[in-house]
Amino acid sequence: MSSKDLFGVILAGGVGTRFWPLSRETMPKQILKVAGDDSLLQGTIKRLSSIIPTKKISIVTNSEQAELIKLHLASEVKEKKSAQISADVGFIIEPFGRNTAPAIGLAALELIKKNPDAVMAVFPADHLIKNIPAFKRAISGAVIAAREGYLVTFGIKPSSPETGYGYIKSEKKGEKKYGSVNGRNIERFVEKPNLVRAKKYLKEGSYFWNSGIFIWKASVILEQLKVHTPSVYKGLKAINEGRDILKAYKLIESISIDNGVMEQAQRALVIEAPFGWSDVGSWASLDEAAKPNKEGNIIKGRVVDIGSEGSFIIGSDRVLATIGLKDIVVVDTPDATLVCPRNRAEEVKDMVGLLKKKDYVEHQRHVTIQRPWGTYTVLEEGVSYKIKKISVTPGKRLSLQSHKKRSEHWVVIKGQASITCGDEKIKLKKNESTYIPVGVKHRLENLSKTVPLEIIEVQNGSYLGEDDITRFDDDFKRS
Amino acid sequence: MSSKDLFGVILAGGVGTRFWPLSRETMPKQILKVAGDDSLLQGTIKRLSSIIPTKKISIVTNSEQAELIKLHLASEVKEKKSAQISADVGFIIEPFGRNTAPAIGLAALELIKKNPDAVMAVFPADHLIKNIPAFKRAISGAVIAAREGYLVTFGIKPSSPETGYGYIKSEKKGEKKYGSVNGRNIERFVEKPNLVRAKKYLKEGSYFWNSGIFIWKASVILEQLKVHTPSVYKGLKAINEGRDILKAYKLIESISIDNGVMEQAQRALVIEAPFGWSDVGSWASLDEAAKPNKEGNIIKGRVVDIGSEGSFIIGSDRVLATIGLKDIVVVDTPDATLVCPRNRAEEVKDMVGLLKKKDYVEHQRHVTIQRPWGTYTVLEEGVSYKIKKISVTPGKRLSLQSHKKRSEHWVVIKGQASITCGDEKIKLKKNESTYIPVGVKHRLENLSKTVPLEIIEVQNGSYLGEDDITRFDDDFKRS
Repeated sequence: MSSKDLFGVILAGGVGTRFWPLSRETMPKQILKVAGDDSLLQGTIKRLSSIIPTKKISIVTNSEQAELIKLHLASEVKEKKSAQISADVGFIIEPFGRNTAPAIGLAALELIKKNPDAVMAVFPADHLIKNIPAFKRAISGAVIAAREGYLVTFGIKPSSPETGYGYIKSEKKGEKKYGSVNGRNIERFVEKPNLVRAKKYLKEGSYFWNSGIFIWKASVILEQLKVHTPSVYKGLKAINEGRDILKAYKLIESISIDNGVMEQAQRALVIEAPFGWSDVGSWASLDEAAKPNKEGNIIKGRVVDIGSEGSFIIGSDRVLATIGLKDIVVVDTPDATLVCPRNRAEEVKDMVGLLKKKDYVEHQRHVTIQRPWGTYTVLEEGVSYKIKKISVTPGKRLSLQSHKKRSEHWVVIKGQASITCGDEKIKLKKNESTYIPVGVKHRLENLSKTVPLEIIEVQNGSYLGEDDITRFDDDFKRS
Repeated sequence: MSSKDLFGVILAGGVGTRFWPLSRETMPKQILKVAGDDSLLQGTIKRLSSIIPTKKISIVTNSEQAELIKLHLASEVKEKKSAQISADVGFIIEPFGRNTAPAIGLAALELIKKNPDAVMAVFPADHLIKNIPAFKRAISGAVIAAREGYLVTFGIKPSSPETGYGYIKSEKKGEKKYGSVNGRNIERFVEKPNLVRAKKYLKEGSYFWNSGIFIWKASVILEQLKVHTPSVYKGLKAINEGRDILKAYKLIESISIDNGVMEQAQRALVIEAPFGWSDVGSWASLDEAAKPNKEGNIIKGRVVDIGSEGSFIIGSDRVLATIGLKDIVVVDTPDATLVCPRNRAEEVKDMVGLLKKKDYVEHQRHVTIQRPWGTYTVLEEGVSYKIKKISVTPGKRLSLQSHKKRSEHWVVIKGQASITCGDEKIKLKKNESTYIPVGVKHRLENLSKTVPLEIIEVQNGSYLGEDDITRFDDDFKRS
């Protein structure tokens, strides 16, 4: 069904605090592999790529997340040949997030330059869709309506009185066929309801869950932004005319496309989505992403269980021993463990807020940190020392750098290290070591094409923050 | 009340698998601090020392546990002046455990040599007693009865139909006063009952919980062992006559004093113990050892909780985040985490069995290991490398040793190291390092009297087991 005018846009700016401790500020939900071998983002790209060529798909995100996402997709491409498609995806980068209306507007501006008649299909990065043929048919129909000038959204027929989703109230009359699917005019959008209202909506019949998927012509959504959110439109226009994007974004209103446009728009259409959708919003809905065993458990990692039921038990390399749990979520990571009943999984968001308030660091980052050259893991940290395991990908090297406050001892435990230290260049094999004094320019490099390099680094110093680094040369252009 | 003929005996041979993951094979329940600042053993010694001079108290244990217990008591003495009393306690060491009858018999043989009229008071190492004055009064009374030739045990008035304890049925008639307490003849001993029976016992009135505390003359219990368990007595006699204890123990029957003697004995007396007793048998009874907060929770370590009730949440240095738990036990240690409902805490024993069966190591030892010279912690272990943090107590040194299969890189992170490596002797400060090649004799020593020495050790080698060690000289006489 690929057509010249159809473009894909993936919104990937979220953090997804409700998947803590797997998600962190530096490990957003969309790049987590909660649903098997693929991350949610990778799954979204794969799904879209069967409809739209990858070169015509763009990811909209902010500059901080863009680096993470590029690293993630690159490592996916390396690991799995099937992920090759990810390499072609384009990026539209906001200086920082301003909700969905500005993000979509920015993408529309880009697309209209490529094709004045561009139809853009907008998808959240972190949803699951199971029935791909039905998904394709629904898109086909929606594209027809979009070409007629409609703002189209997919609505999901509610199967339960869900209080975690927004709802769309459709007009009961005036249903019209677009391809193999039916569209109805939208009466209004409803924020997440309480249980009483949700039950009423379920019974009433004309309410849909808001899928967050939209299809429209780029020119039409820009027109609508101009009419309904003039301040957003003004900012976008300034950017288009060459104004500094950071300055423009600071003035732009933070508003969702639902509130900013869809609620006001005249020609807004909801198409009933027949394709098994889930937003995997919290640990409670993990069973929509992964298949529970016959006891209703989802168990991953080094878990030993005796007789649990309906529980999600996600371990790591440590032993996670569970006995007789009922509908409990346990998620264990190297530096943090979460235990909560499934029906209180929404409160994980509050837990992350509490950690932030209490000045913990465990909501910010994992102990293993992705870098363009590989990874590092903090094994132990104490007063004036820090122990790291550093892995350098074959063919990669760290920046040429120095530190003002710390020295470093390096012991090679795998592969071969090519090391610059001051004016010296040396090579170290497994079981050899060297010392990098305070202030001396140094660089660590893995010249092998196949074998990863691993070293243990023992840092000593009065200050051991990652920001004590002066870079003189960097393959990845970091400052 | 201290009297010349009164001796204390503490039975400390148990492992206490039901306190996993805090307890391990190399960290038995009695040396855990589940009830505050003191270990259960330390608490038992303290309690007894107010009645019996510490020099007249002996710990009966097996040779494996004896080393652990000595290390534990020594480090307690160092940490807390109040623990000084522990330093004087004697040890009676079995080659391996054979249940309580042989352990008590062995202790009786020792005591009778010191004093032919010795009265021995026998206590489990891992129980809690709250009312010390009442405890003293009860012992006083029991000693009177013991001097008359009775086998005396304390019975606890049941407060609930407990199925985790053994029961003692007393004769309804013939109550007699001993000091300020009452004794009755014992009709029979009952193994842990089911709930129906336990309820009956509670109602019936003449049943007591079996406290495992016994008081009798050493000569009387030896006589009774001779009459009722001749095989045990024969073995003990052989040991007394100079026979090798290991050989003798292999032939000795494994039997409890309850089954072996008390059930058959004519002059067995139960004294109602008025002193608030608990055996802290599993995580479920932790609230008898520590005081729950107003929500009924016991919370320790780096825990962040939102709205849990009746739960025991024991964390470590990692973040343990809990939300809305009800009557759940969560115990987190650096290498293993347990989650189970309180009413299934007895099954922790099965979990340990399962770990053993599955060839896990996490039921055997903690990542931090106590040594007579200090501690070491395994930070990371991989194919052909292992990273340890080693702490050496001021004034202590490791053995002069060598390894056949591994080399070691040492980086000092705290204090000063005095190092022997081959023929060389060097001193290293913080941030200095050295290398110990395969096969070279070496020794690590902390000459400071006040500052602990800490080093990071990076081992490389084809085999990294702790048993690859040849010792040439050792302050602690290990082979």
